[in-house]
Amino acid sequence: MESDLLIGGDIGGTHMRLALVTPDGEILHQSREATLVRAGAADVVGRLALQCREMMEEGRRAGGRARAVGLGVAGKIDRRAGAVLFSPNLPTMNGFPLAGELGRALVLPVFLENDADVFGVGESLLGAGRGIPHWIGVTLGTGVGGCLILGGKLWRGDDLGFCGELGHMVIDPGGPLCACGLRGCLEAHASSSALKQGVRDAVNGGRLRKGILHEACLTGELTSELICQEARLGDDLSRDLFHRLGWSLGLALAGLFSVLGLRHAVIGGGVCSGWDLFIGPLMESLTHHSSMLDPGQAVIRRGELGDEAALAGSARLAWARISGSHESTS
Amino acid sequence: MESDLLIGGDIGGTHMRLALVTPDGEILHQSREATLVRAGAADVVGRLALQCREMMEEGRRAGGRARAVGLGVAGKIDRRAGAVLFSPNLPTMNGFPLAGELGRALVLPVFLENDADVFGVGESLLGAGRGIPHWIGVTLGTGVGGCLILGGKLWRGDDLGFCGELGHMVIDPGGPLCACGLRGCLEAHASSSALKQGVRDAVNGGRLRKGILHEACLTGELTSELICQEARLGDDLSRDLFHRLGWSLGLALAGLFSVLGLRHAVIGGGVCSGWDLFIGPLMESLTHHSSMLDPGQAVIRRGELGDEAALAGSARLAWARISGSHESTS
Repeated sequence: MESDLLIGGDIGGTHMRLALVTPDGEILHQSREATLVRAGAADVVGRLALQCREMMEEGRRAGGRARAVGLGVAGKIDRRAGAVLFSPNLPTMNGFPLAGELGRALVLPVFLENDADVFGVGESLLGAGRGIPHWIGVTLGTGVGGCLILGGKLWRGDDLGFCGELGHMVIDPGGPLCACGLRGCLEAHASSSALKQGVRDAVNGGRLRKGILHEACLTGELTSELICQEARLGDDLSRDLFHRLGWSLGLALAGLFSVLGLRHAVIGGGVCSGWDLFIGPLMESLTHHSSMLDPGQAVIRRGELGDEAALAGSARLAWARISGSHESTS
Repeated sequence: MESDLLIGGDIGGTHMRLALVTPDGEILHQSREATLVRAGAADVVGRLALQCREMMEEGRRAGGRARAVGLGVAGKIDRRAGAVLFSPNLPTMNGFPLAGELGRALVLPVFLENDADVFGVGESLLGAGRGIPHWIGVTLGTGVGGCLILGGKLWRGDDLGFCGELGHMVIDPGGPLCACGLRGCLEAHASSSALKQGVRDAVNGGRLRKGILHEACLTGELTSELICQEARLGDDLSRDLFHRLGWSLGLALAGLFSVLGLRHAVIGGGVCSGWDLFIGPLMESLTHHSSMLDPGQAVIRRGELGDEAALAGSARLAWARISGSHESTS
C-alpha cells in the first residue's frame, strides 16, 4: 500500500522552501528557490506548482503519495478561503486565493497557515517544545511573529485570521516608530529590521560617523548578521541594540506569562544567531518585570529545528486538516 | 432527598461576603461583615466559620445541604495547599493555610480561588460572558485583576498560583510608579489606587491647589467615587485620569487580543461605576493600538452581576472541585 505523505512549505519574501514530509514530521526531501514576488501572484503559483510536482514525483519514487499541501505564509491569512489577506513581505499576494489556485493546478488540497504557527507546530512536534504542554512561540526575523501552543495544540482563538501576534504588541508607547505606524511595538525593538533601523538612526543622528556599520549603511549593505558580528567584536552600538532586543522580549514575555499563567517560551527565527548577545538581557528583564513568577521559574528555549520547523509544521497542519485530527501537534 | 448547595465567598480587604448558592449559581441567601484583617488570621477564620455555619443552617432550612465552600481571595493562591501565598489586601493572611483551618472548623471541603477568577466564572455562568467561549476578564478595583475564559472554562495555565494577572503587565516602562515597585504597570493607570494617586500627584506637584479633590486629599477622604463624581461635573484633572485609565486598558487589551486571537472582554469591579467616563477612550485606544482586529470587531462588555459574580463563581468552582466536572463554567 502507498504510504501517506505531505508537502510542507514556507513562502517567504525571499525564498520559497518545500519539503516532502511524513505525517510524523520526518522530512524526506527538500527544495528551495527564489520567490520573486514582484513577478506577480500567478507567476509565483506557477513556479510553486512545478516545485510541488517534483515533490509529488519524489513521493511516488519513495513508494508513497502526497495527500495535501500545507504552506506557511507571513501575514494575516483567511484559512477558510485559503487566501492571503495581508502579507507585508508578499505584497502582490494580498487578497490572492493562493490555496485554491495551487490546489486546482495540483488536484490536491492546499492549506495556508501563518508562518509563526507552523514554526510552533514543528517545534512542538520534534523540537524545543516537545513534551511541554503550554508555551509561547516567538519568531525573530524581518518582523516578530508568534504563536501559542496550549494543551499541546496550536491555539486558534476565535479564528479571526491571526493569533499569537506578539510583534505589534505595544510594549513602550514612547518607543521607536514601527513599520506599522505605531510607536513602541515589540517588532520595533526585537526584529532584524529594528536592529538595522537602530544603526540607521545612529548614522542619521550623527552618533555613528565611521566604521563597517557606517559604511554598510551608506552602501545599503547593512544586515542584522553584520550587526551581530560587530557586537561580538565589542562594538557598543551593536551590543546596545541586542541588549534592547533582549530587554523588550523579557518585558513582553513577563506580561504574557502573568496573563497566561505560563513559564515556557521557545524563540526561533534568523535573529537567534545572536542568541548569546540577547539571552542575558532578556532573562534579566524577564525577572525584573515578572511580579508573579519566582526567579528561575521561567524557561526560555532556543528553537532547535531552524528552517525545518516550518516545513514539518506546515505538513503536520495539512495532515491534521485532511485527517480531522483537530490539529493536535503531539 | 436533600438538595446540594454550596457556600461561595469573597474575602476582601474591607468586607467578607458569603452566599448560599445552588450548583447552577442561583444565590439563595447572602451575608456581609467587616474583614478586620488586622485582628489576625485566626480571628478572621473564627468569624468566617460563624458566618459559614449560619449559611449551613440556612441551607438546612431550605431543605438542602452545603457540600463545600469556595472562597475568592485577592492575591497569589496555592490552590493545592489551600493557602494564601501573598495578598496585598490581607497581609496577616500571607502563608496562612486558610482552607485547611476553616475546613477543619466546618468539617467541609474548602477551596481557595483568586478573586478575579471567581468573577470570571460567575460572569461566564450567568452574566456578561454567557455564551461567549473565549474572553478576557478584567476587574478594576483597588488593584487590577483578570482572568481568561477559554473554551467556556477558566484557564489555569501551568497552575503556578496565578493566571490572568493583567494588573502588573508593564504597558508603559516610562509610566507612573506602581505599588509593586515597577514603573508603568496597568494597575498604576487603571485602578482606583491609580486614580487617587493621580490626584495626590497633582496636589503634591502644585497643579491642584483648591477644590473638593484638593480638600479630600488633605483630609485623607479621597475616594475614586469622588473623582468619578468630579469628572462628571467636568473637572479636567478627573476627566484626564479616567481618560488615561481607558487609554491604558485599550492598549493592554489590543496587545492581548492580538496574542490570544480574541475579540471579547468583560470588565467588572468597583471602578466600573465610571464606565461612561472611560469606555470611549478605551475603545479609541483599542482601535488605535490594534493592528490585527478590524475596527468594530472588538466587543468590550461591562460585568452584569456586580458583587454576586464572585459569590456565584466561587461556589461554582467549589462544586466543580467536589463533583470532578473539570471546572467547566457552562
